[in-house]
Amino acid sequence: MKNIILLAAILWLGFCSNGLAQKPDEVEEKISAIIVRMTLDEKVAMCHAQSKFSSPGVPRLGIPELWMSDGPHGVRGEINWDNWGYAGWTNDSITAFPALTCLAATFNPQLSFEYGVAIGEEARYRKKDVLLGPGVNIYRTPLNGRNFEYMGEDPLLASKMVVPYIKGVQSNGVAACVKHFALNNQEKWRSHIDVQVSDRALHEVYLPAFKAAVQEGGVWSVMGAYNQFRGQFTSHHELLINKILKGDWAYDGVVITDWGSAHDTKEAALNGLDIEMGTWTNGLTFSERFAYDNYFLAKPFRDIIKSGELNEAVVDEKVRRILRLMFRTNMNRERSLGRANNVEHSRVARKVAADGIVLLKNDKDFLPIDEHTSLTIAVIGENATRTMTNGGGSSELKARYEVSPLEGIKHRFKNATIIYSMGYASGPPAYGRELPSGLDADSLSRAAVEAAAEADMVLFIGGLNKNHYQDCEGGDRKHYHLPFGQDELIRKITDVNPQTAVVLVSGNAVEMPWLHDVKGLIQAWYNGSEAGNALADILSGEVNPSGKLPFSYPVKLSDNAAHYFGQLSYPGDSIRQHYQEDILVGYRWHETQQIKPRFAFGYGLSYTQFTISDAGVNATSYLASDTLKVSCTINNMGQKDGAEVVQVYVGKKDSKVKRAVKELKAFEKVYMKAGSTTTVELIIPVEQLAFYDESIAGWHIEKGRYQLYVGNASDNCVYQTQFRIK
Amino acid sequence: MKNIILLAAILWLGFCSNGLAQKPDEVEEKISAIIVRMTLDEKVAMCHAQSKFSSPGVPRLGIPELWMSDGPHGVRGEINWDNWGYAGWTNDSITAFPALTCLAATFNPQLSFEYGVAIGEEARYRKKDVLLGPGVNIYRTPLNGRNFEYMGEDPLLASKMVVPYIKGVQSNGVAACVKHFALNNQEKWRSHIDVQVSDRALHEVYLPAFKAAVQEGGVWSVMGAYNQFRGQFTSHHELLINKILKGDWAYDGVVITDWGSAHDTKEAALNGLDIEMGTWTNGLTFSERFAYDNYFLAKPFRDIIKSGELNEAVVDEKVRRILRLMFRTNMNRERSLGRANNVEHSRVARKVAADGIVLLKNDKDFLPIDEHTSLTIAVIGENATRTMTNGGGSSELKARYEVSPLEGIKHRFKNATIIYSMGYASGPPAYGRELPSGLDADSLSRAAVEAAAEADMVLFIGGLNKNHYQDCEGGDRKHYHLPFGQDELIRKITDVNPQTAVVLVSGNAVEMPWLHDVKGLIQAWYNGSEAGNALADILSGEVNPSGKLPFSYPVKLSDNAAHYFGQLSYPGDSIRQHYQEDILVGYRWHETQQIKPRFAFGYGLSYTQFTISDAGVNATSYLASDTLKVSCTINNMGQKDGAEVVQVYVGKKDSKVKRAVKELKAFEKVYMKAGSTTTVELIIPVEQLAFYDESIAGWHIEKGRYQLYVGNASDNCVYQTQFRIK
Repeated sequence: MKNIILLAAILWLGFCSNGLAQKPDEVEEKISAIIVRMTLDEKVAMCHAQSKFSSPGVPRLGIPELWMSDGPHGVRGEINWDNWGYAGWTNDSITAFPALTCLAATFNPQLSFEYGVAIGEEARYRKKDVLLGPGVNIYRTPLNGRNFEYMGEDPLLASKMVVPYIKGVQSNGVAACVKHFALNNQEKWRSHIDVQVSDRALHEVYLPAFKAAVQEGGVWSVMGAYNQFRGQFTSHHELLINKILKGDWAYDGVVITDWGSAHDTKEAALNGLDIEMGTWTNGLTFSERFAYDNYFLAKPFRDIIKSGELNEAVVDEKVRRILRLMFRTNMNRERSLGRANNVEHSRVARKVAADGIVLLKNDKDFLPIDEHTSLTIAVIGENATRTMTNGGGSSELKARYEVSPLEGIKHRFKNATIIYSMGYASGPPAYGRELPSGLDADSLSRAAVEAAAEADMVLFIGGLNKNHYQDCEGGDRKHYHLPFGQDELIRKITDVNPQTAVVLVSGNAVEMPWLHDVKGLIQAWYNGSEAGNALADILSGEVNPSGKLPFSYPVKLSDNAAHYFGQLSYPGDSIRQHYQEDILVGYRWHETQQIKPRFAFGYGLSYTQFTISDAGVNATSYLASDTLKVSCTINNMGQKDGAEVVQVYVGKKDSKVKRAVKELKAFEKVYMKAGSTTTVELIIPVEQLAFYDESIAGWHIEKGRYQLYVGNASDNCVYQTQFRIK
Repeated sequence: MKNIILLAAILWLGFCSNGLAQKPDEVEEKISAIIVRMTLDEKVAMCHAQSKFSSPGVPRLGIPELWMSDGPHGVRGEINWDNWGYAGWTNDSITAFPALTCLAATFNPQLSFEYGVAIGEEARYRKKDVLLGPGVNIYRTPLNGRNFEYMGEDPLLASKMVVPYIKGVQSNGVAACVKHFALNNQEKWRSHIDVQVSDRALHEVYLPAFKAAVQEGGVWSVMGAYNQFRGQFTSHHELLINKILKGDWAYDGVVITDWGSAHDTKEAALNGLDIEMGTWTNGLTFSERFAYDNYFLAKPFRDIIKSGELNEAVVDEKVRRILRLMFRTNMNRERSLGRANNVEHSRVARKVAADGIVLLKNDKDFLPIDEHTSLTIAVIGENATRTMTNGGGSSELKARYEVSPLEGIKHRFKNATIIYSMGYASGPPAYGRELPSGLDADSLSRAAVEAAAEADMVLFIGGLNKNHYQDCEGGDRKHYHLPFGQDELIRKITDVNPQTAVVLVSGNAVEMPWLHDVKGLIQAWYNGSEAGNALADILSGEVNPSGKLPFSYPVKLSDNAAHYFGQLSYPGDSIRQHYQEDILVGYRWHETQQIKPRFAFGYGLSYTQFTISDAGVNATSYLASDTLKVSCTINNMGQKDGAEVVQVYVGKKDSKVKRAVKELKAFEKVYMKAGSTTTVELIIPVEQLAFYDESIAGWHIEKGRYQLYVGNASDNCVYQTQFRIK
């Protein structure tokens, strides 16, 4: 027995991290010591799921299992061992944080860190080792059903926001899992569509946030995508994973499939996939598909190693990465215990929500509404009461509570008379049931218009709703306009009561034929547990809006770059698609093609007025190794405290390659007292002005003259200057 | 955010143990700091289950949940959240260790420690914080369905064996949970039977193992029992818990109900219960019973505190104990990760099994069987192939593997011809299904007798089988003899082939009308994963038997003390029962009443011969504060290495109170090479010779002359002397 205890002690003391004192070299030695003790079967077992959300450890060696949970807006409810039913546990209600579009709209990296810390604590409390998020796929089309889980259309914004989120999560000894790597920019045909995109767009637009996640965020796991890229599935991709991620970027973490995104054992083995998770595995009979042993990285993987076709070193390398992940998470005894449902997490959720809500229109200071008003306010629209933490696919949550917009409004405007009318119903088609009597579209609409006519003002709270085809994983939106007759309803409402503001609860841009007729417009996102309170904060002016759009709102769908080029660009011909807009995604397209968007990237109003003045750069010419320092003065000219996001864009009109007129290169959110003035300095390393030169397969900093723009929206740069790179 | 992180850091660094450096005072201060931050609802929540095997923590403060698992022979498979179905996980197969009767039969505390370490490692790997075992209810009647989970009839043996088990388990940061406190000595009517027993028997017979668990083992949790004692349910018992356990013994751990053993909120609140777990709660409608909020220590508990009827300090005290348990387990960051299904654990299982198997009869060295024999061996009996890790109630296991006796025999005796015949079938009545055709009792019996007639020797492997009424929780055996016609079958077999040995797989004594006709008899227990290998070790002589009976085998049921006094003694009148045999349990009864048992407590043969000689004590008289040193010489006279258990009993013939002729006061297992001689010294503190004097409600050391016996069984003491206490 002494030997047993001694061995146990060696394993524990030897293998387990000493936390901060843990040195990479020592960890690698420990990993080597573990691998030589493992059998081939044990190694292979670690490379695939044993259940819907766990992969095995090595019980006899005390190597723990890995437990994962869907994210990225909260820790998902417990799922059954090997089917997708909920397990019916009662300890898995959590804090629902705002969707990542909202987080991106804050333009506040510090808030992203707070969000990461909080969600990481909840994951840790729930005993999860890997949180499956955040997502940083670039917003390419407003139809993409999963945009709400991502961080917008700009690679710099997504990069700056994803890094602190990862650091926050991982400070808990829980791995973030950046997804979906890569080019999963639509849900339609996601399981097979083969994306064709230039190397330049890949590196300049679609990969930077992943690169930042790896190199600046130090992310411990990356999730592959369902789609193909240039004829190969992205979850085991020679170029994306072997060459770029693990090669060029020196990523030392684990690559995990999306659930069921592996397609071939040899490719999975050789092209960088480390853990295969899944719903089922394809190419087999129905019952075989569900057996984890049949996964590509299970028995078939072992067999080709045993046959000698593959060297055992292939699996060793995967196991090394998985063990490295474990030393960072479940074998790190310094990690905290986490916590959940605490008031601090609710505060983070509310702060992010309020900071991310974007005020898009506010005629004659229609908003804010005095908290003490005794007016009659008609709240109209299904989204005023609809639970939004449900639905949407894998990101759906079992929120401990969710304050609806209507609840938030009623609670805030206590002296007002709040009348609610549903106005429209999304129900029947999506739910597969009939509407209750009296809830037919005509009755609902009539009742709403009557309510609107009676009221002093109207808050129409609509948008999309995370049903299938309405901001939901697994399918794209089928059109750009608001569904369920909302456009027509808003028109009828404004006909009887022009004192109307619209609140859009959605994760995507929509067409706005009624924009001219409404006095106010708020983009309110999917904001989780504190949604209603945060909205009330904005409506009442308790919080001064400071969110900025993380993606452009085209007037019509064909104004969007992906759609401009037609079917083959989006959604493709069902086999493949070509990103014909190339690097001109989002505002890069609008600015370069001079197609005015309805609302531009970076745009968002405040209840106060800011001016930006005295902008300038610290030199007229720079070397490639230099750093630009851009400074400007901000003045809060109004009567309210508030925040402005200073945005710096750079362009190069005489470039030898096609360039966007503007690319965001720096931003800073500045919180300012009413009447105050401050000076901001933003830093841009010159190397960030490089373009990806396909002729050298690398980054190139062009010499010559550049344009620099400073403003508070991509289409509102009040200051422009030039500088040179020598 | 800084504040949030700071708070998190304080909570973590402040609340969590620094392992070995953790000082009790500091822990108590941390606990106080947590309690003042908790709401009443949070405190009450910690006092009852949230699921079948977990109780809540405080998510917002990062206080983790407590996860428990049934024991005591292995970590039970995962159960559904709130019903008793298995959850269907595939990661919960474990090592099945031998039943505790077998562990007790080893008479080897060091093996008990190894067992504890191993099972604790498996519990830890499975993320359990509390292992619901071991059980130390005294073996009072061979009918008790749950005896197999306990450690026999002698309080000293149970005490010496339970302490190292607890220390082993808890060395993993997993709490042992000693059960069932107290007087749960039968399954019949266990949910309500009201036990009447003298204070003296309580303290001298039924409580010592619990006391040792607390005071020597330092156990962190104790489970109440279902039954009543003197009109009060034992899980919330003023005398047992408040006065004795938490008062006299200064127990600082947690008292947990058996599942559903609480019956009253106020008693639970005031009489020392800390956590109520359960199947359901009674006194309510069917659906209400299953709601955890309705548990006695749930909403009703909160309500009487809120009403002011109880002071909040009552719940604070429980929470303090629960938090203390957490600092020892899931908030102790020094605890290991555990491991499971490793070869070392299998070795422990096999070693305990082989060391605990008892050779009861061996005419003319019938055993061992030469490993290389080419004889034809008929293996007969259902228990040769039956899976024994299933069944039995809460202790049933999902063993990763279980080597059956037949498999063990076939694997060992490779040159022999092994023919197997089932002989009898336990199936239909218990399983509720018909036997397959050809499996009627007559056909089975005939086939077995034919096989026996053909063979050179017969190994009959029968016994009980963990079906209901056959060594199983929830019901007692209905009679003392072997079930399913085994007695008759053995008679028929020995008629045709006298070269027959019987192997009893059971956790209880049985009547043996056939004993005279068999050449060999082995008591083989329920031995878990390695059952068949360990049996083969004994049959082949690879291991020399050294197990000793941890309880007496009466010839007939009425020879047992509990049964001697009839119905009211056992099983009672359905309302209450009287332990009329008082202190004369087991061999105390047989020795004192001179009722010769079939096999005596402490008895067990070896393949070698030992002699005990030169026994003596180190003085002729002692003070109360002295220690007796008993020494003797052991000689292994035979040709094989082996082990003998030296047993020292003490009696006092002229006591002023009723005394057993003999009580075990010390034992030591000595492993000896063939032909070797060694001297053993055993220590007996004089204070252990005290009796519980009801007139002073305390222990009293009587002065005068005592008899001291040294031998290798309770009825085979080769040496007797006297000494005095002054």
